[in-house]
Amino acid sequence: MSEFILKIDCDDEKGLVFKIANEIFKSGLNIISNNEFVDSTNKKFYFLAKLDSEGIDFSKESLRLRLQNILPNANIYLDEKRTKNIVVFATKETHCLGDILLAEYAKELDINIKMIIANHDLSDLVKRFDKNFKLIKALDDRMEYEQLIKNELDKIDFDYIVLAKYMRILSKDFVDTYKDKIINIHHSFLPAFIGANPYLQAYNRGVKIIGASAHFVTSNLDEGPIIHQDVVRIDHSMNASELRNAGRKIETLVLRCALEKVFDDRVFINNNKTIIF
Amino acid sequence: MSEFILKIDCDDEKGLVFKIANEIFKSGLNIISNNEFVDSTNKKFYFLAKLDSEGIDFSKESLRLRLQNILPNANIYLDEKRTKNIVVFATKETHCLGDILLAEYAKELDINIKMIIANHDLSDLVKRFDKNFKLIKALDDRMEYEQLIKNELDKIDFDYIVLAKYMRILSKDFVDTYKDKIINIHHSFLPAFIGANPYLQAYNRGVKIIGASAHFVTSNLDEGPIIHQDVVRIDHSMNASELRNAGRKIETLVLRCALEKVFDDRVFINNNKTIIF
Amino acid sequence: MSEFILKIDCDDEKGLVFKIANEIFKSGLNIISNNEFVDSTNKKFYFLAKLDSEGIDFSKESLRLRLQNILPNANIYLDEKRTKNIVVFATKETHCLGDILLAEYAKELDINIKMIIANHDLSDLVKRFDKNFKLIKALDDRMEYEQLIKNELDKIDFDYIVLAKYMRILSKDFVDTYKDKIINIHHSFLPAFIGANPYLQAYNRGVKIIGASAHFVTSNLDEGPIIHQDVVRIDHSMNASELRNAGRKIETLVLRCALEKVFDDRVFINNNKTIIF
Amino acid sequence: MSEFILKIDCDDEKGLVFKIANEIFKSGLNIISNNEFVDSTNKKFYFLAKLDSEGIDFSKESLRLRLQNILPNANIYLDEKRTKNIVVFATKETHCLGDILLAEYAKELDINIKMIIANHDLSDLVKRFDKNFKLIKALDDRMEYEQLIKNELDKIDFDYIVLAKYMRILSKDFVDTYKDKIINIHHSFLPAFIGANPYLQAYNRGVKIIGASAHFVTSNLDEGPIIHQDVVRIDHSMNASELRNAGRKIETLVLRCALEKVFDDRVFINNNKTIIF
Repeated sequence: MSEFILKIDCDDEKGLVFKIANEIFKSGLNIISNNEFVDSTNKKFYFLAKLDSEGIDFSKESLRLRLQNILPNANIYLDEKRTKNIVVFATKETHCLGDILLAEYAKELDINIKMIIANHDLSDLVKRFDKNFKLIKALDDRMEYEQLIKNELDKIDFDYIVLAKYMRILSKDFVDTYKDKIINIHHSFLPAFIGANPYLQAYNRGVKIIGASAHFVTSNLDEGPIIHQDVVRIDHSMNASELRNAGRKIETLVLRCALEKVFDDRVFINNNKTIIF
Repeated sequence: MSEFILKIDCDDEKGLVFKIANEIFKSGLNIISNNEFVDSTNKKFYFLAKLDSEGIDFSKESLRLRLQNILPNANIYLDEKRTKNIVVFATKETHCLGDILLAEYAKELDINIKMIIANHDLSDLVKRFDKNFKLIKALDDRMEYEQLIKNELDKIDFDYIVLAKYMRILSKDFVDTYKDKIINIHHSFLPAFIGANPYLQAYNRGVKIIGASAHFVTSNLDEGPIIHQDVVRIDHSMNASELRNAGRKIETLVLRCALEKVFDDRVFINNNKTIIF
Repeated sequence: MSEFILKIDCDDEKGLVFKIANEIFKSGLNIISNNEFVDSTNKKFYFLAKLDSEGIDFSKESLRLRLQNILPNANIYLDEKRTKNIVVFATKETHCLGDILLAEYAKELDINIKMIIANHDLSDLVKRFDKNFKLIKALDDRMEYEQLIKNELDKIDFDYIVLAKYMRILSKDFVDTYKDKIINIHHSFLPAFIGANPYLQAYNRGVKIIGASAHFVTSNLDEGPIIHQDVVRIDHSMNASELRNAGRKIETLVLRCALEKVFDDRVFINNNKTIIF
Repeated sequence: MSEFILKIDCDDEKGLVFKIANEIFKSGLNIISNNEFVDSTNKKFYFLAKLDSEGIDFSKESLRLRLQNILPNANIYLDEKRTKNIVVFATKETHCLGDILLAEYAKELDINIKMIIANHDLSDLVKRFDKNFKLIKALDDRMEYEQLIKNELDKIDFDYIVLAKYMRILSKDFVDTYKDKIINIHHSFLPAFIGANPYLQAYNRGVKIIGASAHFVTSNLDEGPIIHQDVVRIDHSMNASELRNAGRKIETLVLRCALEKVFDDRVFINNNKTIIF
């Protein structure tokens, strides 16, 4: 099988499904799966198809052009399904980073980890997986510090930056440079406990459930489009440190699930929300 | 808005979405939402659309015929969205029955409860909601007993029979008479703890989670297509009676969620499974 | 069986369990269950025992005094397990109120609903369960309005006020009058979405899970000690109204679970948190 | 702090808490936490205390003897909290094994992995963590095969054997040799889908939730005392292979949570059940 991904988003109008299905039908491609969603509040249309070109004489550029012709204002993505190149940022904690390293190792995620960048030395773990590690210690001048990171990023091709418990805030400039490409795991059930030390906040508030949230990063801290969330039940007997331990497992799981969805090309960004098929 | 439901299932082939979308487009109807699924194991295609006929000069019979023409072997359902008429069967426990009565009362489910039939006297509760109650005590001769029930059912029009903790097994003959119309709540996480007294079974097995399952009834006990399931965490300190109490709340919730899906026309039966959009 | 509840909280010190267990042992009572918790942050000790006095010549006042003698600064509650008298406040929505009415009817909660007070006319539902309903419409002058409520409350004995989707904010004065006796269901996963219309907030934020929180009411809005929380997964296809529908079922479930715990005498208030055995 | 674990189980009788608390009090030890449970069906008493000996002149053997004197028929365990030595068995899949290696690496579990034994070559992964790997290929003669494993085990001291997706059935003889020391992760929500290929069974049954169960191994396949279970919601669109992928993450999480509880000395075995404080 040779799988293609077709993603379309545009203003909603009548007949969109018919028009798109017509072009796919004419191309001879087989539809493996097919999803649409209309955001009726914003009158926006979202379409995802997975297509099989096995045995079909098929030009992806030609289909893309025909679709763009009939939908002149649409965003259209059409490409072969492929391994995602990623960069992972971390600080000290290794639970999310380790899980991503294992996921690549065991081919549980279809990724190629091009580089790991951290502001503490995690080289001992990273080298066990023969991966490229850059230690870039935080500087007082954030712009200077981020420029060092950018210099490294400029040397490689990548699809996504994964903040795997990267505990620093990135500048608006940095975030805009890699728009829609940065995925963060936040250690709370957003929008509860925005900001620092959410487990201590959760302990002090006496909540009965804690959670974690994976989201795209925008320049508004902890306010980017949420991809996935999950929770775990806690009780009065657990102190802030025990909440942190319980939370680590949920953070790992939530980030993994979010990465699966994004890397499987199933996620659209719709302003500050996601649409996930 | 005047909402129509279009449900189609047939053998899968290329171009189905295009053909169907084409007919909908020509009819001038607005697509509110639109879902397809291909069961690639069984090569079956399932399609659900919700359509808005507001301001359209529209003949549902004519659209249905055109669709049937292009899809001669498909099952095609096209009709206005409407309140579901239901009959509820119960035994002694009232938690599911009471929840359904409240849901109709508060218009949380779009239903019209035509009759409640039980083999114990639940008239005190039922009459509080001005509903029609029939006490039909179980007889040694099951065929005779079920005939008494059928006699009552023959007098009314209804879409679904809801077994709201109806603790008796219905004969194959009865089930076949009301094929795909009977929904049961089973007090376990199927297929665990099939049969009698699942909470005692769960207690004896020492499980850490219990659940409930709503399913269509077929002639194989507890083996019909599952519509919805949910679970609740338990611990060693709870005895079988406490499990039963915890379970009641999950039974009520699971049955309610299943009824919402079915009565909102979002459920297909695919052999012993459901497809839910 | 004649069940007694013993609840003790005091500053922590060595030997508390021994001292208390010694007195219980000397009284001849059988311990059905027994829980302790030390809040090591605040150096506080919490103890709950359920005791069986069957066949024992037992004076509860004498045991209470002996315990108070050895623990002069402790709060000690010792009494027979008994049905809780409650008052329910509501506004328009009936899902939580209806569930509590059914729970009393089916003896699923050990309660006696003494009165229902609402600022909209819910008498049609309440009378179906032969309960006492008071319509007290909100006034511009909140103190005057609350005085009307207090006048009704003064006429009856009750243990708890349950705010079953009572959508008004109570004054500090009112809350202080019924300290530790008011239980609210908030329609969000606190502390997310404090305040008005949390489902619209959740829709706008694009969260992937919504929840509900039952808590004791203090004079700080939505900041009282949380008793129980639960969540349900949602997705991008649901609008604010569908979130509200999904939320209703979780609100009902969470309030019910919280009431079970409180009315079963298993909850301590520890500043702005609860301890639940 | 110097932490001691005291675990006691015996037939239930009046005054046990008093007697035990008395001995602890006389020893001068500080109680960090303290839990009891009475299995009233089997008239069994379970007690767990965590004790702090900081600054106390304390002989653990002397306290143990005094406790044994007053409770002659009790099982009494009293020892310092310590790192658990474990052996991990695996087959081909590495998600659980990798997670345990990472947990030791990041000190998230207080373990010392003494050896990994597998019937496929997982040395590439294991060596990355500098661990001892033994490849022992399955033989037609199971007794002979298990003897090879026992020969390896005889060379080392260990507390637990963790079956981290070890897909072979161990003989009664083997299980009896390491009674109460073998922990397995089963890839279903037990007792649903006992035996081989539970994900295919789940797919064929059309369940809406799948799960995983960690349990102690007894000679009855998949029937040992359950330590922890968890579930994840699935839908009709997922095939058996996608269920397997979804399941892997839950298996990893459930096994990790179970190991935390066991290695934190919080688990008692009560016939075919566990008691977990």
